[in-house]
Amino acid sequence: MKVAVNGYGTIGKRVADAVLVQNDLQLSGVSKATPDYESILLNRRGINLYVPESSIKKFEEMGVKIKGVISDMVNLSDIIVDATPGGLGPQYKQLYQSMDKPAIFEGGEDASMVDLSFNSLCNYEQAAGKKFVRVVSCNTTGMLRVIYALRSYKIKDIEVNIIRRAADPREIKKGPINSITLDPVKSPSHHAEDVKTVLPDIKIVTRAAIVPTTLMHLHQMTIWLNKKVTKTEIVNEFLNTPRVVILSSASRVQSTAEIMEIARDLGRKRSDMPEVAVFEESVNTDGEKVMLSYAVHQESIVVPENIDAIRAIYGKVSKNESIRMTDVSMGIMSGYLV
Amino acid sequence: MKVAVNGYGTIGKRVADAVLVQNDLQLSGVSKATPDYESILLNRRGINLYVPESSIKKFEEMGVKIKGVISDMVNLSDIIVDATPGGLGPQYKQLYQSMDKPAIFEGGEDASMVDLSFNSLCNYEQAAGKKFVRVVSCNTTGMLRVIYALRSYKIKDIEVNIIRRAADPREIKKGPINSITLDPVKSPSHHAEDVKTVLPDIKIVTRAAIVPTTLMHLHQMTIWLNKKVTKTEIVNEFLNTPRVVILSSASRVQSTAEIMEIARDLGRKRSDMPEVAVFEESVNTDGEKVMLSYAVHQESIVVPENIDAIRAIYGKVSKNESIRMTDVSMGIMSGYLV
Repeated sequence: MKVAVNGYGTIGKRVADAVLVQNDLQLSGVSKATPDYESILLNRRGINLYVPESSIKKFEEMGVKIKGVISDMVNLSDIIVDATPGGLGPQYKQLYQSMDKPAIFEGGEDASMVDLSFNSLCNYEQAAGKKFVRVVSCNTTGMLRVIYALRSYKIKDIEVNIIRRAADPREIKKGPINSITLDPVKSPSHHAEDVKTVLPDIKIVTRAAIVPTTLMHLHQMTIWLNKKVTKTEIVNEFLNTPRVVILSSASRVQSTAEIMEIARDLGRKRSDMPEVAVFEESVNTDGEKVMLSYAVHQESIVVPENIDAIRAIYGKVSKNESIRMTDVSMGIMSGYLV
Repeated sequence: MKVAVNGYGTIGKRVADAVLVQNDLQLSGVSKATPDYESILLNRRGINLYVPESSIKKFEEMGVKIKGVISDMVNLSDIIVDATPGGLGPQYKQLYQSMDKPAIFEGGEDASMVDLSFNSLCNYEQAAGKKFVRVVSCNTTGMLRVIYALRSYKIKDIEVNIIRRAADPREIKKGPINSITLDPVKSPSHHAEDVKTVLPDIKIVTRAAIVPTTLMHLHQMTIWLNKKVTKTEIVNEFLNTPRVVILSSASRVQSTAEIMEIARDLGRKRSDMPEVAVFEESVNTDGEKVMLSYAVHQESIVVPENIDAIRAIYGKVSKNESIRMTDVSMGIMSGYLV
């Protein structure tokens, strides 16, 4: 299966690397609009680089080798992962449609543009045969994994306060750098609606604020269940959920900075942490109410979901088998991280 | 050769990993004073962990497996890399002396405590037979590599403005987080004196300020030479110096954030960049005067120097051969990074 990655930013570069380590997938090429250090590294690795028609001259002037234009790449591929900047999706969708190619979009695009909003754990099977699928955003993916972990209970209500990172580590022109910004001020935030694109019947409200950090998002969640539970029962559910890891009390981890340090110590490529990371000591129960805090690595959490979405569309590999293949190839863990 | 690493913080963990990939060195163990996620990961990797006598109980309570106390580790090792927090050196030096073991200290310790302040490029040969050697600090190591690159000229004077990172990425209790702090206010700063511990005859002054970032230091340097030079001549000297890399104009890199992103894209362990990274476009000449800016990764730049210092003390491997062995094993580059 030949996979093209259109757009080589935070998500695109990671999806491309993840495709490269799948036995059943082949990377046909990636696209970029501007020549810079990333195109130099792509050339050095021998990865086929395609560019928009209007950018050919810029790349040639910088001495970057290109393989063709984006429509060439789409034409020779079986499926496209569209990781172009949010909002460009509708324009590229027309290109994919004109060549009759299925495509996967990211959370920055509108849910109305696609046939299905996707999360591996929650609705893998529904993607079979769909033409256009959207992998929901990092925050939504994090919430969905936590909700899925508690699927043996009936969830009555959920409230989440999302503390968002301001920019990705490589971004040098984005803020805030000295403010706590309500985004949006209006409550609830759109994140709850995004969860409902995958789980329409769930009752959830969300609020969000941005803080000056680049590392991860933090979610502070309260869930009301239909029966009394203990902390041990809840922690056990998380211990048995793929792509969710627990930071043990003994680890003394209390920050996103330390979680990222663990990713570095584990020797992971780009020091990524695609797992939802739940702070064990933050899990607290009071009758039917559960409170917990967990961190979401905005750069990498949706990458395994993109790989699964490719297989899900073709409908030949089961959900559990795809998750297993993706997680083994990418070194994604479950259980106690530390 | 059995190497012990006393202290498992930013530098210690990296030196331990670097020892593990040397064919001629063996890691006898590492020490830590507090049980946390790092000790859990050490246990999982099967690395021998030694602790201070007073910490045994803490570790046992947390279920961390320990091999013994620090004096056991020193006793069974041939040489110790002391990466304990700055200021603890004199106390541990007594222990090493009592067991007649050579030791390498870090830049946080006083130069008067050791027989030689060390930099691989500048004075490798002087370490042969020394008992106590000190690898100079990250900023000093950066300046020494740049000065070494220009050794074919007579340097008349140097001025450096050092813009320092506030804390390491994993540190969560250090600032400033919203200030530009002169550190020290007094000019010149001690960094110039530290350069002279390795190159006593060089004329240099330094000033330093701290800014709210964790990634790298930035140096803005002016050098007066004894003859007129061109930008091309200077860039060529850097291109031919080990552990110095150039960020080409074509790469469009203009920030420490992007340099760290390249380290991530290269798939390096912990996303480290032990090379001095010179911005090609910042190199500017005016007659005998050269101006340039370069970045210094405070977490990793001294790691290869520690490995070389071990070999230098024993005097059996030449400078160039040690640098080659260290750089090949650690994937350290020279020439154009991008």
